[in-house]
Amino acid sequence: MKAIQPIRWDPDAKQLILLDQSLLPAEEVYRGYSESGEVAEAIRSLVVRGAPAIGCTAAFGVVLAAYRYTGSEAAGLGAVVAEAMDDLAGTRPTAVNLFWALDRMGRTLAGSAGQSCGAIRSELEREALAIYRDDLAACREMGDLGAGLVPESAKILTHCNAGALATAGYGTALGVVRSAFSRGKVSMVWVDETRPVLQGARLTAWEMVREGIPATLITDSMAGALMAAGDVDLVVVGADRIAANGDVANKIGTYSIAVLAHHHGIPFVVAAPISTVDLSLVSGGSIPIEERERDEVIGFRSEVWAPEQVRVYNPAFDVTPAELVTAIVTERGIVRPPFGPALSEILRTG
Amino acid sequence: MKAIQPIRWDPDAKQLILLDQSLLPAEEVYRGYSESGEVAEAIRSLVVRGAPAIGCTAAFGVVLAAYRYTGSEAAGLGAVVAEAMDDLAGTRPTAVNLFWALDRMGRTLAGSAGQSCGAIRSELEREALAIYRDDLAACREMGDLGAGLVPESAKILTHCNAGALATAGYGTALGVVRSAFSRGKVSMVWVDETRPVLQGARLTAWEMVREGIPATLITDSMAGALMAAGDVDLVVVGADRIAANGDVANKIGTYSIAVLAHHHGIPFVVAAPISTVDLSLVSGGSIPIEERERDEVIGFRSEVWAPEQVRVYNPAFDVTPAELVTAIVTERGIVRPPFGPALSEILRTG
Repeated sequence: MKAIQPIRWDPDAKQLILLDQSLLPAEEVYRGYSESGEVAEAIRSLVVRGAPAIGCTAAFGVVLAAYRYTGSEAAGLGAVVAEAMDDLAGTRPTAVNLFWALDRMGRTLAGSAGQSCGAIRSELEREALAIYRDDLAACREMGDLGAGLVPESAKILTHCNAGALATAGYGTALGVVRSAFSRGKVSMVWVDETRPVLQGARLTAWEMVREGIPATLITDSMAGALMAAGDVDLVVVGADRIAANGDVANKIGTYSIAVLAHHHGIPFVVAAPISTVDLSLVSGGSIPIEERERDEVIGFRSEVWAPEQVRVYNPAFDVTPAELVTAIVTERGIVRPPFGPALSEILRTG
Repeated sequence: MKAIQPIRWDPDAKQLILLDQSLLPAEEVYRGYSESGEVAEAIRSLVVRGAPAIGCTAAFGVVLAAYRYTGSEAAGLGAVVAEAMDDLAGTRPTAVNLFWALDRMGRTLAGSAGQSCGAIRSELEREALAIYRDDLAACREMGDLGAGLVPESAKILTHCNAGALATAGYGTALGVVRSAFSRGKVSMVWVDETRPVLQGARLTAWEMVREGIPATLITDSMAGALMAAGDVDLVVVGADRIAANGDVANKIGTYSIAVLAHHHGIPFVVAAPISTVDLSLVSGGSIPIEERERDEVIGFRSEVWAPEQVRVYNPAFDVTPAELVTAIVTERGIVRPPFGPALSEILRTG
């Protein structure tokens, strides 16, 4: 089966092609982007989402800006690229992979000072492709490492979509699921629907069905009852940002699942590339949490089911404290508590 | 403001009028019922839902069957009524108030042996009205008692709809909220949307908006993050069945909230009339849990968002063990742990 490719770069047309995730699973529509501003809007409107995927996409957004500048002044090119980077950085505040990818692009730009515009563009394109390939390789590695944590005949609960769609491909949490499944270790994947945007019901369910991995869709509120019944052996989720002490920001609802897993003595595993770790933040309390529109909560697409007058609170992420995390799977190894020293060690040795 | 009346009996037309809750909040449609079979279907399809409301509705369904039999043979009337009771009993398995109300109607039928058909019909009608009025009075009493458990400026989290719509009126959990609000004690009601049927987003939000009680709608997955932020002082929910040991069956997701409340040291209060207590069951493990259709989970109304091929698990209720319950508010008093002796005492003294 063809691997899921949410992000593709067309090197001839200098065009970014995104699978429009807002339409999945009903429609599989690929959109071409030639403007970094349109890429920023695609990130904002969740055409592409998932921390690593946002990072890759933003990197290609920078490349598009560089190609859009058709002059020959390096300073002019630099200004256009810097403006695009600012725009892209303003799209979504929580996933640090976005800033990490933009930082890599910024360093590349700085490193190519004195070169011709053509050379700078090539350097930026090369770097974006490297970010993309690194992410794909990291997912494979996390999958292999994480599969070792999965018991035989495992019933695995996952939340949101930390799958191929959330990355360059293969996935973080779902990378672990895929690798474990290929080793015959997965008897069931419980797919939390993940309100309000339903990334579980729409995207994770689609990935599982597509690859024949046994999966059952539940509402977010059912996770506790499943755990109480002994039907969950392991929780695996992704991450949008991990603070220096191991606190994990991830899709809203992750914290509730972590508390439930703790209460039932079920391992709670986070799979995320090194680019998700933000050593500049001492703890999760400093991670900015995006609040999104009320529309996402009062209905879905054409259906509005709540009274228009009701107040809404819609934080897109929450923070799970390190105490509730059993292990963090990175491409450089599995990190265990105490996370503080382990995370700084693994970042230092990279 | 006119009180919410989800269930009305027209004594002249001998007709039951139900507010169609499946259409709320967009439309406020009242439907007339003259056949007990249609009433059973209304219960099954969630035109009316909520444990006490189901009990009241079923009682009137029995009355309709009695009036539908136009003969003058008491045995014939008895057979028709018994058949209607069987049909009504088969609608929904978890809420015990249904069986409790049917049991009251059955006793009334048995107690009027030897009377004329007209007299039997009148007795049944009187009993159904008594069940209805008792429920309304019980809700008021629970509201007053429960309000004493609510701290000043309370931020209260509730799940599903245990409101006027779930009862003859006023509500169980929302009865507590209403009474506390009338005493100036409520600063915010956090309304869990309660997937899959969205009773929170559709019904509780509607009740709160209608009465100007400050309320904020959240997805079910946000409760944990709110608790961690210190924004929940108290959880109040209803119940569909309470076992002899104090284990509580209630809308799916209640258990998760109870675990979260326990983790954060937040009181978890259940408000339910005595008719919800089932002393025949030693513990919650014996409470039958209704499983509903996959359609409820893969979408809502016209929107289908999950892949059609995905498996679905859709239990409508879960069981919260007594250890996680701080208090049970009944119309006869507030019951505290150990619930076993306290519940049997309060039922005995009724």
